[in-house]
Amino acid sequence: MSSGKSKMEDEAVLDRGASFVKHVCDEEEVEGHHTVYIGVQMPKSYRRRRRHHRRGGHKDRKDRLMENISDKSDTENNDEASNSILKPLISPAGERIRIMLGEDDDGPSPPQLFTELDELLSVDGQEMEWKETARWIKFEEKVEKGGERWSKPHVATLSLHSLMELRACIEKGTIMLELEASTLPQVVDLITESQIGNGLLKAELKDKVTYTLLRKHRHQTKKSNLRSLADIGRTVSSASRLFTNQDNGNTGASLVQSLLASCSMNDISDKPEKDQLKNKFMKKLPRDAEASNVLVGEVDFLDSPFVAFVRLQQAVMLGALTEVPVPTRFLFILLGPKGKGKSYHEIGRAIATLMSDEVFHDIAYKAKDREDLLAGIDEFLDEVIVLPPGEWDPAIRIEPPKSVPSADKRKNMYSGADSGQMNGNMPHEGGGGGGGHAVGDELKKTGRFCGGLLLDIKRKAPFFASDFYDAFHIQALSAILFIYLGTVTNAITFGGLLGDATDNMQGVLESFLGTAVSGGIFCLLSGQPLTILSSTGPVLVFERLLFNFSKENDFDYLEFRLWIGLWSAFYCLLLVATDASYLVQYFTRFTEEGFSCLISFIFIYDAFKKMLKLADYYPINSDYHIDYVTQYDCMCMAPTILGMTYLHYTPKGNPLNATWSSLSKKECLKYGGELVGKACQYVPDITLISFILFLGTYTTSMMLKKFKTSPFFPTWVRKLISDFAIILAIMIFCGVDILVGVDTPKLMVPTEFKVQISLLVPLKEHMLKKGAGYHLDLFWVAILMIVCSFMGLPWYVAATVISIAHIDSLKMETETSAPGEMPKFLGVREQRVTGVCVFILTGLSVFMSPILKFIPMPVLYGVFLYMGVASLNGVQFMDRLQLLLMPAKHQPDLVYLRHVPLRKVHLFTFIQILCLALLWVLKSTVAAIIFPVMILALVAVRKTMDYMFSQHELSFLDDVIPEKDKKKKEDAKKNSKCGSIDICPLPDYLSFSSFSYINGTCVNRKTQYIYT
Amino acid sequence: MSSGKSKMEDEAVLDRGASFVKHVCDEEEVEGHHTVYIGVQMPKSYRRRRRHHRRGGHKDRKDRLMENISDKSDTENNDEASNSILKPLISPAGERIRIMLGEDDDGPSPPQLFTELDELLSVDGQEMEWKETARWIKFEEKVEKGGERWSKPHVATLSLHSLMELRACIEKGTIMLELEASTLPQVVDLITESQIGNGLLKAELKDKVTYTLLRKHRHQTKKSNLRSLADIGRTVSSASRLFTNQDNGNTGASLVQSLLASCSMNDISDKPEKDQLKNKFMKKLPRDAEASNVLVGEVDFLDSPFVAFVRLQQAVMLGALTEVPVPTRFLFILLGPKGKGKSYHEIGRAIATLMSDEVFHDIAYKAKDREDLLAGIDEFLDEVIVLPPGEWDPAIRIEPPKSVPSADKRKNMYSGADSGQMNGNMPHEGGGGGGGHAVGDELKKTGRFCGGLLLDIKRKAPFFASDFYDAFHIQALSAILFIYLGTVTNAITFGGLLGDATDNMQGVLESFLGTAVSGGIFCLLSGQPLTILSSTGPVLVFERLLFNFSKENDFDYLEFRLWIGLWSAFYCLLLVATDASYLVQYFTRFTEEGFSCLISFIFIYDAFKKMLKLADYYPINSDYHIDYVTQYDCMCMAPTILGMTYLHYTPKGNPLNATWSSLSKKECLKYGGELVGKACQYVPDITLISFILFLGTYTTSMMLKKFKTSPFFPTWVRKLISDFAIILAIMIFCGVDILVGVDTPKLMVPTEFKVQISLLVPLKEHMLKKGAGYHLDLFWVAILMIVCSFMGLPWYVAATVISIAHIDSLKMETETSAPGEMPKFLGVREQRVTGVCVFILTGLSVFMSPILKFIPMPVLYGVFLYMGVASLNGVQFMDRLQLLLMPAKHQPDLVYLRHVPLRKVHLFTFIQILCLALLWVLKSTVAAIIFPVMILALVAVRKTMDYMFSQHELSFLDDVIPEKDKKKKEDAKKNSKCGSIDICPLPDYLSFSSFSYINGTCVNRKTQYIYT
Repeated sequence: MSSGKSKMEDEAVLDRGASFVKHVCDEEEVEGHHTVYIGVQMPKSYRRRRRHHRRGGHKDRKDRLMENISDKSDTENNDEASNSILKPLISPAGERIRIMLGEDDDGPSPPQLFTELDELLSVDGQEMEWKETARWIKFEEKVEKGGERWSKPHVATLSLHSLMELRACIEKGTIMLELEASTLPQVVDLITESQIGNGLLKAELKDKVTYTLLRKHRHQTKKSNLRSLADIGRTVSSASRLFTNQDNGNTGASLVQSLLASCSMNDISDKPEKDQLKNKFMKKLPRDAEASNVLVGEVDFLDSPFVAFVRLQQAVMLGALTEVPVPTRFLFILLGPKGKGKSYHEIGRAIATLMSDEVFHDIAYKAKDREDLLAGIDEFLDEVIVLPPGEWDPAIRIEPPKSVPSADKRKNMYSGADSGQMNGNMPHEGGGGGGGHAVGDELKKTGRFCGGLLLDIKRKAPFFASDFYDAFHIQALSAILFIYLGTVTNAITFGGLLGDATDNMQGVLESFLGTAVSGGIFCLLSGQPLTILSSTGPVLVFERLLFNFSKENDFDYLEFRLWIGLWSAFYCLLLVATDASYLVQYFTRFTEEGFSCLISFIFIYDAFKKMLKLADYYPINSDYHIDYVTQYDCMCMAPTILGMTYLHYTPKGNPLNATWSSLSKKECLKYGGELVGKACQYVPDITLISFILFLGTYTTSMMLKKFKTSPFFPTWVRKLISDFAIILAIMIFCGVDILVGVDTPKLMVPTEFKVQISLLVPLKEHMLKKGAGYHLDLFWVAILMIVCSFMGLPWYVAATVISIAHIDSLKMETETSAPGEMPKFLGVREQRVTGVCVFILTGLSVFMSPILKFIPMPVLYGVFLYMGVASLNGVQFMDRLQLLLMPAKHQPDLVYLRHVPLRKVHLFTFIQILCLALLWVLKSTVAAIIFPVMILALVAVRKTMDYMFSQHELSFLDDVIPEKDKKKKEDAKKNSKCGSIDICPLPDYLSFSSFSYINGTCVNRKTQYIYT
Repeated sequence: MSSGKSKMEDEAVLDRGASFVKHVCDEEEVEGHHTVYIGVQMPKSYRRRRRHHRRGGHKDRKDRLMENISDKSDTENNDEASNSILKPLISPAGERIRIMLGEDDDGPSPPQLFTELDELLSVDGQEMEWKETARWIKFEEKVEKGGERWSKPHVATLSLHSLMELRACIEKGTIMLELEASTLPQVVDLITESQIGNGLLKAELKDKVTYTLLRKHRHQTKKSNLRSLADIGRTVSSASRLFTNQDNGNTGASLVQSLLASCSMNDISDKPEKDQLKNKFMKKLPRDAEASNVLVGEVDFLDSPFVAFVRLQQAVMLGALTEVPVPTRFLFILLGPKGKGKSYHEIGRAIATLMSDEVFHDIAYKAKDREDLLAGIDEFLDEVIVLPPGEWDPAIRIEPPKSVPSADKRKNMYSGADSGQMNGNMPHEGGGGGGGHAVGDELKKTGRFCGGLLLDIKRKAPFFASDFYDAFHIQALSAILFIYLGTVTNAITFGGLLGDATDNMQGVLESFLGTAVSGGIFCLLSGQPLTILSSTGPVLVFERLLFNFSKENDFDYLEFRLWIGLWSAFYCLLLVATDASYLVQYFTRFTEEGFSCLISFIFIYDAFKKMLKLADYYPINSDYHIDYVTQYDCMCMAPTILGMTYLHYTPKGNPLNATWSSLSKKECLKYGGELVGKACQYVPDITLISFILFLGTYTTSMMLKKFKTSPFFPTWVRKLISDFAIILAIMIFCGVDILVGVDTPKLMVPTEFKVQISLLVPLKEHMLKKGAGYHLDLFWVAILMIVCSFMGLPWYVAATVISIAHIDSLKMETETSAPGEMPKFLGVREQRVTGVCVFILTGLSVFMSPILKFIPMPVLYGVFLYMGVASLNGVQFMDRLQLLLMPAKHQPDLVYLRHVPLRKVHLFTFIQILCLALLWVLKSTVAAIIFPVMILALVAVRKTMDYMFSQHELSFLDDVIPEKDKKKKEDAKKNSKCGSIDICPLPDYLSFSSFSYINGTCVNRKTQYIYT
């Protein structure tokens, strides 16, 4: 800021939004009026008026003179002056930046920066060297001096002081933009020459500055001090020679020059060093990354600071200056007199933090002069978040937040948008990012016969080829293995339970075969190939109801089932033909959650019921006393006829001459014998070990699943353990079972299929080459339902949990994310190969049956319990249930609690509980057979709730029913919270939008219900 | 800031530390030189020189003119100017504040402030009312508009903007300090009159402003809107009458006046309202608290902001202005033109945050003029913590930190101290707070016979009376109940295990009696009456070793034990007489942790060993097959002699003519019969139910203990559940045991004491009236050891866990802590009553034996396991063990990791592991008998470690051995981290200093080891 500026520029400076650090004398001051405006923002239009008024403002000043004497109740002069507390729409700093950043929008965006802070430290109190003390990509990492390690990445908290001091540095220091140099000595030479030329540096100090700046750089990567100690020994001697005559200051320039040359060659080489190349940190940086080096230090030969900010025209490797072999673009140098080392350090941190700021980074690349840089700092100051000193301890390292607001918002905000409120509500109306949430094309009603199906096919067709070649990535392999294990576990679990439910009419092997056939065909031809078909809870419930119904009414189960299947498929096809899939959008969160919770509860309830049934089947002898072991036995006795025991009556059909007592329990009963004795009705150990296996499997699954978030072992190990949690738990407790050796009930594996091939009709393959969306998916579910019904295989529908795990395992993220930064989500590797492979492998698993028979049923019940509990995770209804038990002040900061009164939240929860209770009761009656239809009742209930809650409240607690208020629905969706890792790995996978985002098709969880 | 100020004042403003928002034209500007200095700090001495140089600074400016044209590599003028980036030692703002705050240091400190932010909101778009939107005591609480609730307290994040705008408000608005008024209308009248008088407000607007300011205030406490809706109906009519002629502006002043009077009476009454008095929030405030009210809003009749900051001479209740019935001291009013509501809101938040800042709060009370307030704002700005916009999302509400730096530091820092580094290391050398850590008087060697003991007594004597009357507090009652339960559980557990270890030579009843006698006497007469004596792990280990040793060598256990006891007591008395307790200070953390971990491991190991032994004793029949139940039995057969079975040989001494088969197992073996059959060697169910009980008790204890930190239920419920965790777990699993009904091994409760009264000598009561410290404690332990040895009761030593729980339950905290603020620790209610009561109750518990026999041993083993695991919590050694498994980047941010290289940390851990392994091996050999002595070996090992680690490293990983470097020891203690809730409820209870802090005596955990 100098007097040499044009008036125009002065005005700009005065008006800039962030210019509270600025101060300028107005025209009046030239006239001797010492009126000063603090630089808070005032509209330009106002300023003009203001000047006009001031011309006659003498009286005001006089008033103020008086005020200063009677300082008790002083007031300022006029209404207009106080208006200056208002903020202008566009600040001049913002304007400058907008022009600067908008200039070449077409060009590539500037490369990412790696910023390193090196400080001048003395070794042995004599020799200096540059030591890396912190680094930045996005967040700050500090060298723990004592710990000889990097700190965790943290938010760089600065003091306002250091930022102001930095501003002064940029204002007064040497600024060299577009400097042409290829080595560090060259750069240093140019800077010192410029400073000497401007009288900022005494010529005789040049050598010392140069010598200091070319000292060796030590990076944190160097573990051992041995080599460097040797180096120090070497350099100390040369340094002492150099500075022997320091006080005289008359060392021959040529001598120094030659010494410098040798020193600099010694310390700074042009080629990257081994340490640099070996540095693993490199993988955190993109290939085109550039470096900015911040060098700060205190020296004893300077009286005033030596400041320089340099941007090189071409980024060049300056030897071992930077920790990683990345070319340097920026250099910030601050050398100052002794005693202010801490200030220099903080200034260094401030510039480094600025360089890692997205907006200032762009400004630094595009700045044309000092003013641009200052405007950048002002803009930064304008946006900083201030923590009051009494409420926060600056020593606390703040962990990087999960997400930060986009810098684009900042870059664009000078066009007049409000900056929003600190600590305020999350914006309810977000910007238009990512595809929007309006009901997609897929769910629009066409009105034509099969219109939706045909449209789906048309939409999907162009992607069919890429659905195969997109799979060529190592990630696909790991996804196949992971999902295969999930599918097999599911097939085993549900198969086992299905066998249990249907007296082994259908079982594990049918489950394998059915899964393989249905899943494979579906993945190959459906609209959304990432969907994994599987037996799910509702299907299991339905099959059991069906089995019981047919048993009670003496129907042939498989035949009855075939007809049910055919009718269901017919209706599904009818729905496809009439585009009825669009009705899916009427299922709001209320309906979804109600239904999914009901299913989870059934899972949990069934798991315990099974265990109690088991305990009932294998009763424990609670009267057993060790001492009376001699009194407990169970003997097979000859049948008693009319009170007479036929002791020597040999069992009918008994081979050879076996006595009654030698018969086993089964034989005894078979031949009409009687079991007599205290031990007969009891079974030792089995119930108890079953409970141990049951609870153990559940607990272990839970624990292993959560292991992902523990700090132990490297990430990949934890991820592996977490991914294989259920399989591991099953294996561990199969091991326990074998170890204890008690004869627990095992998974029944029939050795032959009960598939009714006689009934099998030739599978008319509908080779629809391409397709997409609900209609196509539903179509294939119907077709597969027909096939499975004929083959006596279980029915399959989309399995939410596994499908989402599938998508999760295929998600693509930015590979080089800065330390502390969350990886960015790029999309999902959408293809058909992983699904098809998974189901081929599943089909081959039928040969696993010799292994499967080692799995005790209680272990499977434990898995069942786990699935029930895990699927309740992240369901808003469960969160709300928990709120009922929490005092208001302990309640988490949930979005809907900010916007909906607690009593309304509780009312909503109560209604949901009521509905579920009703459904639960209905389930236990004859009405159970129409169970899948009951979901429609929930839709009706939801509809009536429109009269009890405002649309605003419903937008937070639920979705708004479409056609009513699309805008609100969108907002609500954006705000939908999702807490579960299992179900919802991406921010809002459960919501509609994310699925439609993936290539315009849906694996919506809603689909599974309509399919049921 | 105006031209009317004296030069002196201008200088002060220019130089002030935080005055970067300030800008002033220097003298040169009067001469037409547009040179401007940004106000970052520069030393005063420098400034004078600077002015001198500037007189001839024309050339510089010319240079800069040139630079502005060739903007590429411009530099600033001279070395001195760039020196201005340095920070002065004392800033003028700081100086002003120092004088201000130091003025009446003797007077009482200003009362605490409750700050409320009310905003003007329109109801039905026509009528206005003031709505409370946020409040502060220390942290901000916001009204969630939609949620109709208070947000959680959070750190108020501000924008720099709002602070600058606030500064402008204070600079230009009406400042009235020491205003005399008793009602709000009066205050408003005085403000408006002053503004009109100063020309800031047009006279015709006075009525409107007054009307607006006197509108009704609605606080968040009001739940129902019904009443207020009625109010609105009433006021709307009057308002419409008032403003019918608004546009004309010629309403008769008298009419308005009368209307206003009625309105204001309607809206603001002088007496506190019901809502105010009922407000529970009041209990968060101290009785002398005062309020500061911040009123901001936008109105349509103003063209420029109406700003006033008022301090009343006497705090007065201004009716329902404030949420709580607290008198108002400060008022900040900001009314402004429409369209800037958000800015006003942020300014309101800024002043409210300032008012809740400890330093500004004092300044606001003591300010004499506007400049004082501005200096306060500058000081605040000087200290704020800045978060870069790209690294943090302002929408995140930051939870209050565990602790904030003391404001005293800020108040005193103007005396030249450095402000410390942001994000830096925790200060290793803390200020001299709280008693210091140097070895206390108690541990100094006196050199005289019994010198320490006598000194202890002298020291403690004055407190003996207060040790009784200090107990009169309700807290003591709850402490008695809690500690009683803990002591009884301990007595039951250890008694049970002791009985197990000594073949019931000593058991639960002895344990009760011994605990009661020893504990009671100790609490009554010892130096540290908060210590709870109990059987501990080491004693148990030692007793078992002793029992086995005497059994192997055919000694009489109780007699042998008596002699051991007498000798131990003799040595203890010898140690007392020679003041040997001072040796305790040589036991560093290394020794303590090594020993306590060993004990914990023994606990855990023993728990599992017991369970395996139990499983061995009750073997499971793993060949059992349900179908072959007929083949399993166990019959008592006549003895086989020479291969012949004497079937009709009747058992010797068998009463009556019972057959062999009717005999029980025991009888059969007793009479020489043989047990034949597959079932004989197996016991069903017992092992498995035992494991269920064992693991269940452990898991449940753990879960219930952790329940304290869950968000469910009110705090007192959670605390209760957590405190009673172990008792609850024992009860639950006793219930499970009874429910299952299996004959598990139960706690053996002998019905008579085996106390050897013949041996009992008359207890010579040493009625030492007063005493304190190690010597006295050790003395009593010795005396009690003699008593217990004679009586055959178990020995008792200080139980760390229970003693600390005792202290914790008696700690005193500030009762009124601001929301979000941690309660402050005031001290411990030190007395003898609780301890004595606990042990009287324990003694009475011997009548509980009919209940005790329901407790299965596996449940006790579970408690045992829990105790072992829980006592490992918060032990640094365990943390370091975990570090071995963690990748460096996942390691927590522990203090010693910042200061000690990881390899050194690991080396330290390895040495500790080695020592423990060695001790473990020794424990299993004959050397076991000298087990308690082995602790001394650890001290020796620790001593040699001085050669492997630097003192700096040891100060973080361990304590420094005394005499070596006292200073460092203090620092290390202050830095000692303590993570466990169980062991260490207060920051560093385990460390020496906190105990010596409690009345100058020690319940040091170290004591228990030397007592052993």
